[in-house]
Amino acid sequence: MSGGVVALSGGVGGAKLAHGLSMALEPGALSIIVNTGDDFTHLGLHVSPDVDSVIYALAHLSDVTRGWGRRDETWTFMKVLRELGGEQWFQLGDGDLAMHVLRTWRLSRGASLSNVVKDFCDRLGIAAQVLPMSDDPVRTRLLTSEGWLDFQDYFVRRQCRPAVREIAFDGAQTARALPQALAALTQPGLRAIVICPSNPFVSVDPILAVPGIRDALQRATAPVIAVSPIIGGRALKGPAAKMMVELNLEVSSRTVAQRYLGLAHAFIYDQSEPPPAALPGMSLIPAPTIMSNDSERLQLARVVLASAAHCTG
Amino acid sequence: MSGGVVALSGGVGGAKLAHGLSMALEPGALSIIVNTGDDFTHLGLHVSPDVDSVIYALAHLSDVTRGWGRRDETWTFMKVLRELGGEQWFQLGDGDLAMHVLRTWRLSRGASLSNVVKDFCDRLGIAAQVLPMSDDPVRTRLLTSEGWLDFQDYFVRRQCRPAVREIAFDGAQTARALPQALAALTQPGLRAIVICPSNPFVSVDPILAVPGIRDALQRATAPVIAVSPIIGGRALKGPAAKMMVELNLEVSSRTVAQRYLGLAHAFIYDQSEPPPAALPGMSLIPAPTIMSNDSERLQLARVVLASAAHCTG
Repeated sequence: MSGGVVALSGGVGGAKLAHGLSMALEPGALSIIVNTGDDFTHLGLHVSPDVDSVIYALAHLSDVTRGWGRRDETWTFMKVLRELGGEQWFQLGDGDLAMHVLRTWRLSRGASLSNVVKDFCDRLGIAAQVLPMSDDPVRTRLLTSEGWLDFQDYFVRRQCRPAVREIAFDGAQTARALPQALAALTQPGLRAIVICPSNPFVSVDPILAVPGIRDALQRATAPVIAVSPIIGGRALKGPAAKMMVELNLEVSSRTVAQRYLGLAHAFIYDQSEPPPAALPGMSLIPAPTIMSNDSERLQLARVVLASAAHCTG
Repeated sequence: MSGGVVALSGGVGGAKLAHGLSMALEPGALSIIVNTGDDFTHLGLHVSPDVDSVIYALAHLSDVTRGWGRRDETWTFMKVLRELGGEQWFQLGDGDLAMHVLRTWRLSRGASLSNVVKDFCDRLGIAAQVLPMSDDPVRTRLLTSEGWLDFQDYFVRRQCRPAVREIAFDGAQTARALPQALAALTQPGLRAIVICPSNPFVSVDPILAVPGIRDALQRATAPVIAVSPIIGGRALKGPAAKMMVELNLEVSSRTVAQRYLGLAHAFIYDQSEPPPAALPGMSLIPAPTIMSNDSERLQLARVVLASAAHCTG
């Protein structure tokens, strides 16, 4: 079976399935449209957490024990930064810094984010296309019990403690979807569009908020397969479940399924979850969705691709 | 004996004597005016090599084996930068990077270089005043056999190979001397002004090129003591001797002494050197000037201070 596959992904959880898909598919068949809503500038450096998580996963550079960042990382920069009185709330590993410094420098000289990411991927031998959703800045902000917060301020500095009331994607209305992302979504012979098990509110929604992307999903000839990040009534990682409570939603795969209604043709939910009630135009598929190792990543990717084949067939 | 001492210093060699003076003097008595002519921007980061060498020496953070940079340094950043195809010619240690990133960030937010340096010194427990010669940019450039080169391009990337014909300090004419530097040079009870054993052409000259500094030395009530960097007919480190050849000067302490004529009241040269011919108004003092360890640094500092006392007495 041939044809391209497009994945929409946030950080760690989404990156794992993207990695699984890259293992399951022919080299170059996978395009991953990545959330840049949590990009931010820290100590003058442009940090792209979700893009880097995807790159690290695909290049086998992720630290699987820590759950984020690079493996074989060292922390001398942070140690000296602490001695100098620099901000400590966001951890920058020494190797990770090379990505941030080089990206920041190239952006300052007029390169686009997507070009920098492409060059990084080429250097690291990544066959998949890693596509920031836009080269224009989109910034996720959250109205919380402590007022409006920038994403990383909420997510890292305050460790998701403030209650979320509303979520905005500053700049999304005027951001231009990356042309390569739109091209990937409309490519001939497209086999599947996969919404990875990322946080629907702050990882997938910002991608869908960029003009043209939701529309491209709705018009696509290929089936759209969504994977739920909720496992056993909670999110394996990150604040998705906590946000559901705060937004008066049931903490369940059903809530995720409803968000993708009219968009996804198949919905894969963890087998530990109660089956969502039937939803029009959406196949509901239970599967093991925990991806602790490469084999589980590959297995879930195969379930996703089989579901797509089933939708098409 | 009390009273302040002011040292003029470039990088490694000068920093060693500055460290010796800091050990010999009461805390806070020493002010060090440091060359910023070899500051440059690398990968978007503001690097101040001489200032950092002085800071590392005073904070006991220098790597004495390597001869530059921090001890206990790690190199993960450079390793990943290489994998990403980033420039490799200038080595940035992981701990060193914290200085560059924090400095660059603070400068971008409107802080002056001297303020950043002061804060670093406060955090690192340095009692001496470390004073960049100016907060305005001065950039040393060299006319060489390969045309005009920026200092680090000549010094690091081409490892001082091109022959030097002329040296310029871009921006020096309009740079304002740091007010604290001029205040240190005119402080009541000043005990000595020390020209450290730094490269006279590219470490000391740029300091003297900043309007007001040479004049302040000439008007100073305290004796000016210069220390030669030439040992056994060559420079212990750096291109001073090679430059002398290329500029048709004799490679000797005498050449250094002549450059400081009318400025220095005493000239300390290494005991391995032939005694310079008598020069008007300048005492010539042989001494051991190699500073391989703290004890030798302290010993040379004491010779310098004794020479000053002798000039005054």
